[in-house]
Amino acid sequence: MARLDATDKKTVQKIEKLAETVLRSVKGGKNPFLEIPVRSLANVQFNPRKRLIELKDQKQRRYFFNVSMAKKFMQTFLVSDACKELIDAGKTTSIRDLYYMTKHALGETRQNTFEEQEESDPIIEDLEVAIDALREELHLFASGRGSMVGPLSIRDAGDAIDLRRMGSGGWSVPSIVEEHVVQFGKSEAKYVLLIEKDAVWKRFNEDKFWAREKCIIVTGLGQPPRGVRRIVQRLHSELGLPVYVLVDNDPWGFYIYSVLKQGSINLAYESMRMAVPKARFIGLSSFDKAKFKLPGNVSIRMNDQDDARAKQMLAYPWFKDPKWQREIQEMVRSGEKYELEALSRRGISFVTEEYLPRKLRDRDWLE
Amino acid sequence: MARLDATDKKTVQKIEKLAETVLRSVKGGKNPFLEIPVRSLANVQFNPRKRLIELKDQKQRRYFFNVSMAKKFMQTFLVSDACKELIDAGKTTSIRDLYYMTKHALGETRQNTFEEQEESDPIIEDLEVAIDALREELHLFASGRGSMVGPLSIRDAGDAIDLRRMGSGGWSVPSIVEEHVVQFGKSEAKYVLLIEKDAVWKRFNEDKFWAREKCIIVTGLGQPPRGVRRIVQRLHSELGLPVYVLVDNDPWGFYIYSVLKQGSINLAYESMRMAVPKARFIGLSSFDKAKFKLPGNVSIRMNDQDDARAKQMLAYPWFKDPKWQREIQEMVRSGEKYELEALSRRGISFVTEEYLPRKLRDRDWLE
Repeated sequence: MARLDATDKKTVQKIEKLAETVLRSVKGGKNPFLEIPVRSLANVQFNPRKRLIELKDQKQRRYFFNVSMAKKFMQTFLVSDACKELIDAGKTTSIRDLYYMTKHALGETRQNTFEEQEESDPIIEDLEVAIDALREELHLFASGRGSMVGPLSIRDAGDAIDLRRMGSGGWSVPSIVEEHVVQFGKSEAKYVLLIEKDAVWKRFNEDKFWAREKCIIVTGLGQPPRGVRRIVQRLHSELGLPVYVLVDNDPWGFYIYSVLKQGSINLAYESMRMAVPKARFIGLSSFDKAKFKLPGNVSIRMNDQDDARAKQMLAYPWFKDPKWQREIQEMVRSGEKYELEALSRRGISFVTEEYLPRKLRDRDWLE
Repeated sequence: MARLDATDKKTVQKIEKLAETVLRSVKGGKNPFLEIPVRSLANVQFNPRKRLIELKDQKQRRYFFNVSMAKKFMQTFLVSDACKELIDAGKTTSIRDLYYMTKHALGETRQNTFEEQEESDPIIEDLEVAIDALREELHLFASGRGSMVGPLSIRDAGDAIDLRRMGSGGWSVPSIVEEHVVQFGKSEAKYVLLIEKDAVWKRFNEDKFWAREKCIIVTGLGQPPRGVRRIVQRLHSELGLPVYVLVDNDPWGFYIYSVLKQGSINLAYESMRMAVPKARFIGLSSFDKAKFKLPGNVSIRMNDQDDARAKQMLAYPWFKDPKWQREIQEMVRSGEKYELEALSRRGISFVTEEYLPRKLRDRDWLE
């Protein structure tokens, strides 16, 4: 059994407390139940003060002596037990792996504990909200995808890593970046720049933008995975670094920004740990095309889906600010979107040498 | 202008030679043409001696004074010119970026040099085969995706990187890993293990399998991107390390192995630089399920497409060896496939502590 750190001890205690509550009601002759916050649109709200999408208070009870609930009840304990086993062993694994670990036939029947991973994934989310522990604290990881460099030293799983000396590839951001795995050391960074696209991140790395500008550059290859979101949030909250987001000028790019900023409806229960409400949208703005004299033929016509998506965004409470309304309305009006790479029409390094420096100097961003 | 290294100088010379040939025929009053090897199934063959999929000799001529060819002719030179500009500037970029760099309106017309990236991508491939230079030598990169650790020191873009101290995330394998970017240093590695899945790679990293076994572990998250294939090939050819491939037991997993081993039909012209004909398939074998006592419920029924794909593989010349026929036939016979994660049913670290050590000890692999 591995030596448990403070976080692990707390998580194990939470799992044990869950089990004890159930055991106690069994002993008391009662029908044991689990209380699980409801994860649905109706139980989610945008908190305008904190600027976060939050879970509201509605809870559901899952009873053991109930034909329709008994299986899920049992599954929740199977998953809890497997997570406890992982934590005790000091190991981490994927949610796919957990599905296989907990899948077995029930007694002599042909019934399986889980038929598909689609059954075990929501149970993991149930457990997360029920005991208020992030997936990472349960020692489960999602896809690791993303690269980071900058004037910062870190420790990752005990190894000292200098993010100033990571060559062309950068440091692979792991899925679990909680403090017991990744610690921040010496930093000269003044801000964090999250870049939607890997190819554009490479331009910033090759041009050593991060060294010149004293910033940390990170990409999540599209919608950033949990590890990237979490490390950006930690850089923001622990090192006090402002966060700038650079995405395509299209509804998907705006959505990436939006999820980083206030979380998503699906994962509202973890907004507090994942979201950066003060993240700044530095581009591409719908007005940049004119501002930076991009030729007309680098833009792409929006299709019906883009248009519908953009109009939907106009209604979101977190885009109610007049500046955001103006921004999105301009996209809808023009009927055009364009990608970060379109800036290359003005020169290979236009984005690092002119575009971003000017946007930063003019404080030309949205919050 | 950046200082060019030997590779860059050679590539620039090749581009210039291409241009000169054309200029000479213009001056001679001839119709200038480019000679480009044909990239089609008919012009591809499996070389059983080298065990590689190779391009045959068929070439097509692309004339300037020909209505149907003139645009492509012009495009080829636009792309060559942009690549030369990149090399001269000592910069690299993505193929998406190159599309934007070279896209512009033709004179006063509404005609564009390229309408879509689907037009510029094949031109890049044309140029690669026409002057026999890999995309990476033209300073173009594909997606960077993949992680690597092991008992090896490298230099990447001038930074000394110790792959023994990369924490939980590992080194992000860049897209361009040619010798002028990545150099190998001190190594204690005895072999390379290429793992299909990121989540399984993490298990191997967390369990420090690479330190115990003195091997380099690398993943490309599914079908490895060019950078991963190329670095595995370099580790094999330059450091003489055997390469083992660990993939899911399904036609897609076998295909991943097959592309690494002898290249693909699409990219036959670069097999020599990308393929590792001696790569060993270490698992998952269709016979491992019985050998390692996996319960029946961890396998997945093959669908019609899987079945058709597997039967197609039986006909490939590179799977003609009786051992491979037996392997694939067993998959078809059972009608079942299973994933690497299925091994976790036997324990969290079964794959690193029992499965792989036993396969290696028993020399239980296919070539």
